[in-house]
Amino acid sequence: MTDKLIIFDTTLRDGEQSPGASMTREEKLRIARQLERLRVDVIEAGFAASSNGDFEAVKSIADAIRESTVCSLARANDRDISRAAEALKGAARSRIHTFIATSALHMEKKLRMTPDQVHEQARLAVRFARNLCDDVEFSPEDGYRSDLDFLCRVLETVIAEGARTVNIPDTVGYAVPELYGEFIRTLRERVPNSDKAVWSVHCHNDLGMAVANSLAGVKLGGARQIECTINGLGERAGNCSLEEVVMAVRTRRDYFGLALGIDTTQIVPASRMVSQTTGFVVQPNKAVVGANAFAHASGIHQDGVLKARDTYEIMRAEDVGWAANKIVLGKLSGRNAFKQRLQELGVDLDSESEVNAAFARFKDLADRKSEIFDEDIIALVSDESVTPEQEHYRLLALSQRSETGERPHATVSFAAGAQEHRAESDGNGPVDASLKAIESKVQSGAEMMLYSVNAITSGSTESQGEVTVRLQHGGRVVNGVGADPDIVVASAKAYLSALNKLHSKAERVAAQG
Amino acid sequence: MTDKLIIFDTTLRDGEQSPGASMTREEKLRIARQLERLRVDVIEAGFAASSNGDFEAVKSIADAIRESTVCSLARANDRDISRAAEALKGAARSRIHTFIATSALHMEKKLRMTPDQVHEQARLAVRFARNLCDDVEFSPEDGYRSDLDFLCRVLETVIAEGARTVNIPDTVGYAVPELYGEFIRTLRERVPNSDKAVWSVHCHNDLGMAVANSLAGVKLGGARQIECTINGLGERAGNCSLEEVVMAVRTRRDYFGLALGIDTTQIVPASRMVSQTTGFVVQPNKAVVGANAFAHASGIHQDGVLKARDTYEIMRAEDVGWAANKIVLGKLSGRNAFKQRLQELGVDLDSESEVNAAFARFKDLADRKSEIFDEDIIALVSDESVTPEQEHYRLLALSQRSETGERPHATVSFAAGAQEHRAESDGNGPVDASLKAIESKVQSGAEMMLYSVNAITSGSTESQGEVTVRLQHGGRVVNGVGADPDIVVASAKAYLSALNKLHSKAERVAAQG
Repeated sequence: MTDKLIIFDTTLRDGEQSPGASMTREEKLRIARQLERLRVDVIEAGFAASSNGDFEAVKSIADAIRESTVCSLARANDRDISRAAEALKGAARSRIHTFIATSALHMEKKLRMTPDQVHEQARLAVRFARNLCDDVEFSPEDGYRSDLDFLCRVLETVIAEGARTVNIPDTVGYAVPELYGEFIRTLRERVPNSDKAVWSVHCHNDLGMAVANSLAGVKLGGARQIECTINGLGERAGNCSLEEVVMAVRTRRDYFGLALGIDTTQIVPASRMVSQTTGFVVQPNKAVVGANAFAHASGIHQDGVLKARDTYEIMRAEDVGWAANKIVLGKLSGRNAFKQRLQELGVDLDSESEVNAAFARFKDLADRKSEIFDEDIIALVSDESVTPEQEHYRLLALSQRSETGERPHATVSFAAGAQEHRAESDGNGPVDASLKAIESKVQSGAEMMLYSVNAITSGSTESQGEVTVRLQHGGRVVNGVGADPDIVVASAKAYLSALNKLHSKAERVAAQG
Repeated sequence: MTDKLIIFDTTLRDGEQSPGASMTREEKLRIARQLERLRVDVIEAGFAASSNGDFEAVKSIADAIRESTVCSLARANDRDISRAAEALKGAARSRIHTFIATSALHMEKKLRMTPDQVHEQARLAVRFARNLCDDVEFSPEDGYRSDLDFLCRVLETVIAEGARTVNIPDTVGYAVPELYGEFIRTLRERVPNSDKAVWSVHCHNDLGMAVANSLAGVKLGGARQIECTINGLGERAGNCSLEEVVMAVRTRRDYFGLALGIDTTQIVPASRMVSQTTGFVVQPNKAVVGANAFAHASGIHQDGVLKARDTYEIMRAEDVGWAANKIVLGKLSGRNAFKQRLQELGVDLDSESEVNAAFARFKDLADRKSEIFDEDIIALVSDESVTPEQEHYRLLALSQRSETGERPHATVSFAAGAQEHRAESDGNGPVDASLKAIESKVQSGAEMMLYSVNAITSGSTESQGEVTVRLQHGGRVVNGVGADPDIVVASAKAYLSALNKLHSKAERVAAQG
């Protein structure tokens, strides 16, 4: 019998913690549904106690997802764990993931606790969590830099208290494969009853080795769960990338000999959805999901590949969901065809009025663009399905002009709650002028940290432009995304969307892992 | 005594082979100068026999670089090797890197040669190369998937013929660290006189393990040269990333115990230059050089970091060249200050008229933008220093307007050689309208594969927008880059720059490695 490797996705928790990657409840829910289609075993949906927004997001996902286990992070205290359990109430299968730091550095400098206090708190936390949930995971934060003897004692205790999964994070991305694999093996050999728990790895990519470290933890160390994220999203250089680790286990099944539950054809759609939602681009030379990862997918055929595919190919593009971009709908498509396509794409709009609004935008787009691709539809809907309370600012109209030798000028009309504003400004370019016009009325004082544009379909300027604007204000970082065939309009939408996120003042507690 | 690890950079050869990453001679020269500042040991400057353009690029780099060894790739035949030697004539230190495939699959399907023929050709090629150059490197392409006994015989032969470096490529990115390290060790144990050559690793990143595989080749296998590229640029998912592998060796010198010649503070400038030149974005969560790689560099401080930096930090941002963005020049800066700053940035303009033209653009920019950063200057100069023969198309003037409810419209004037054109068009957005106007006169028939925009400095729309346009036509893929505070103007420039590259019909032979 082949061992099963458990894929634990933490895009919505560790991934969402990256500066600028925060998502709305609807965005998280949409991604969770895609993760379920991808058939990940566990979805870490968030950190319920960190904010009301995160609590609601975890709850929505727990209520909606049927196939994957839904998990919430919780610090090792009763309040966090209770909140996690409460958020997970509606789940078909739920898991509470509690953590506390065990490295000398973290205990002394961050927690200001003695090792004995940490040990005792870990014990109580797992005991408390097991009263609320059968499936409990424990992580010793900064585990890889922890004292081995102390770590063994803590892990022995949490397994005795009923933790079913013990996860050993390389929190700072310091590990090297053979050392990390050895570390996991030593722990499994030395901790009494280590076989009563599934061992898990959680690696960060600061030195570019998160995938290799995770796989060494599995192959050399005997771990059977990998924590990872779509596109390797996550704090700093991110986490182990799901698509890479899954395709490595699959492509090298001769070596790893492990079974996976993942539907790999959902990998590229998941990557696109996460990239579009967060505004974090995927570089062209990213493994598996980058635009160049499969040369022939971009129309380039090398001589060798034409003669025999496997001269340069170890995976097939279609296996990871690089399907040809399908023309699905056009100008003449009706409301039913549109609604059906939404369902096939896994987009659930809550009400008929949302469907109607999205359909109206679809018709508007179809007037301007002859071929409507799946990505266009997703962009359209992402734009539409903001919850009403977040839609404080709304674009009403925009006109702009620029001419060589003159200063670009823009006039923007937008709603702020019940009020309508009309503002004009000049600027260095038409985008700058439009955003300055908005800012002249809103006076947010936010600093722009990133402005980027990607064409959504087929790279052409005929397609919709997708603009990401990242604003920073008062210690918070938000991303706004806007899509439109007119790049200036898309920019204004993105800016207003970011202002909407700043407007809804969600506060959250920082977690690491 | 600590062993030296040789860093062999192939950004300009393997990196440049990625679809869409082709560079002009001037761009390659600028990057080579940055690689010299970074103090890489060997710069693989190109593949001299593949095209006249590549020959000229290798020659320019060989003539200009004094500190690093300059290398050219060459297939295992006399013509390729002669061309490489000729291009390298002016180098202070030169290397010829010759290769032939040794895996059964590649020999049979691609080369259509028997193993004996391949063996003999490798012998003759190295012998011929050694007559022209002391420093010869040999690579058995697809070495990692080659028959071990056959590979040992080939390597024994090339070492006997005087190859000083033998490089074992994982051409398709199939390796796993412990297996690849073991493979290198076995080769070194079994090949007679293996200690007469430096062993080298060359790993591709298809399964996300290029860095870990390279390091296993070094630590477990005993290799002492790593072939890598800036930003991990390269075919498909790219090569081992220089910045990651260098920082891993440095951060974990406790484990690797190897000396490096690299000036790590030049890493981020090198990354930016390569990204700006190729238009290949670096994703925010890329290790070492991504915008989020050092959380505090983007203004975000986690509680833990505030209490003690090393709770979450294993490297310092300043060690890899993440300096604060310096305001270097403004409206009142004179021509001398500008010229001096260019020199500090390592930009050498060939003539005073080029300096004057760049300075005129600088003053123009300074009128519109209060703070001029180093990146602005580099963008300005990149734009300016196209060689005259490539500048067939030049933007003269552009005006455009868009207004909600109406179709965007643009009028563009541009030169095509001695002729001036004026064209207008509407489009889905002002960018689309501008490019359609140009295309209506040029009628290139090129397909647009990518359109992307990045703000060059500090993410603000006040800064210059840098637009990359990737066009495909007749089997060729080119990138055009344009910078301007007005995104529509930058787009038109980028489109014309791509058309210029299509216009200069460089053909080249495909190489792998």
